[in-house]
Amino acid sequence: MSEKKAVVLVSGGLDSTTALAIARSEGFACYTISFDYGQRMRAELLAAERAAKALGSVEHKVIDLDLRSIGGSALTDDKIDVPEHATQGVPVTYVPARNTVFLSIALGWAEVLGADDIFIGVNAVDYSGYPDCRPDYIAAYEKMANLATRAGTEGHTLSIRTPLIDLTKAEIVQRGLSLGVDYGLTVSCYQADDDGRACGLCDSCRLRKVGFEQAGVIDPTRYR
Amino acid sequence: MSEKKAVVLVSGGLDSTTALAIARSEGFACYTISFDYGQRMRAELLAAERAAKALGSVEHKVIDLDLRSIGGSALTDDKIDVPEHATQGVPVTYVPARNTVFLSIALGWAEVLGADDIFIGVNAVDYSGYPDCRPDYIAAYEKMANLATRAGTEGHTLSIRTPLIDLTKAEIVQRGLSLGVDYGLTVSCYQADDDGRACGLCDSCRLRKVGFEQAGVIDPTRYR
Repeated sequence: MSEKKAVVLVSGGLDSTTALAIARSEGFACYTISFDYGQRMRAELLAAERAAKALGSVEHKVIDLDLRSIGGSALTDDKIDVPEHATQGVPVTYVPARNTVFLSIALGWAEVLGADDIFIGVNAVDYSGYPDCRPDYIAAYEKMANLATRAGTEGHTLSIRTPLIDLTKAEIVQRGLSLGVDYGLTVSCYQADDDGRACGLCDSCRLRKVGFEQAGVIDPTRYR
Repeated sequence: MSEKKAVVLVSGGLDSTTALAIARSEGFACYTISFDYGQRMRAELLAAERAAKALGSVEHKVIDLDLRSIGGSALTDDKIDVPEHATQGVPVTYVPARNTVFLSIALGWAEVLGADDIFIGVNAVDYSGYPDCRPDYIAAYEKMANLATRAGTEGHTLSIRTPLIDLTKAEIVQRGLSLGVDYGLTVSCYQADDDGRACGLCDSCRLRKVGFEQAGVIDPTRYR
């Protein structure tokens, strides 16, 4: 019996790595995809590949995509600093339409592979105020995706799977640990150094740190 | 008084060039975007830039995006031939999720620019059986786009503008000519040579040819 295929978006961070572990636990043959989009944090691409391999990805693809030329985010524009304190509203680390772009490329690959499930580790609880992490956004994306591709005309349905969307960071950590995820392989920091060591100060580091604390487990993050 | 901004997807072909002319005629300051996605037809990138400049694009951007590594289409995979006769169903020249990927990157740029209008030259009449050219797809995309970005939270609305969607190819030609479009600058062929000369045989060439015929005007296409 052949396994059902899924495409899983992986960034090398805590959330997407957990989403991959969940997809594997549901029996999917997982095809993982990362994006080299001119992000500051090159270490995340290495972490993504490492974590994908550790969790049995069938094929890991890195797509080159120059979002730097569009700019508009602290993550892709060197002129905008990553804030080291909490901010209000949509933060400057928001990359315009990033999840939409990433999901769309994953959608193309899913269509080529014949995969009906796309996993993304978005989270609407301990999230950073990004519009493209909300459940109603995901629902609208899924509807659009089924009209965008052959799926609709061939009588099967694409699903955008967001297993973390209602979980707190602590619950995500606990879920991942129960599935054997080694979070020491992951990097979440918005400004990790080339060796993958975290700043401990940015929004992403703060959320991650609290997650381990509230889960009552040791934080394996390497801080610099 | 500052002009309203629009992002316009341009491929160098007849349809998208006409869509750009229409956007200009509505008074938009147009920011044009093309994609270097590993397509066979390199001449289209040159045509897109030429046509964008001729129609007064404020800024023309070419985004590098490697869709070749995903494959699945005659336009991006050298192992699949471009058919030189009419086919049934979704044709092999369909690039999986292409319009979704292109619109999503345009959406990111629109958000950075503060543009609320994105023009795309899709057409549901003389079209090639691509699922991502249908009106219900565009409507679903627009709904998703408003949830994906800051727009929803800031009280303005993004529009995906498809001025050609209900027009025949002949009507598109007539509309463009009435706005002064020089179709000699455009390239539609799926397998144009490096000099931009068309094969005259592929689906795209056939539709274009019939368009000029039915419009009763001279076809300025350079065939090889």
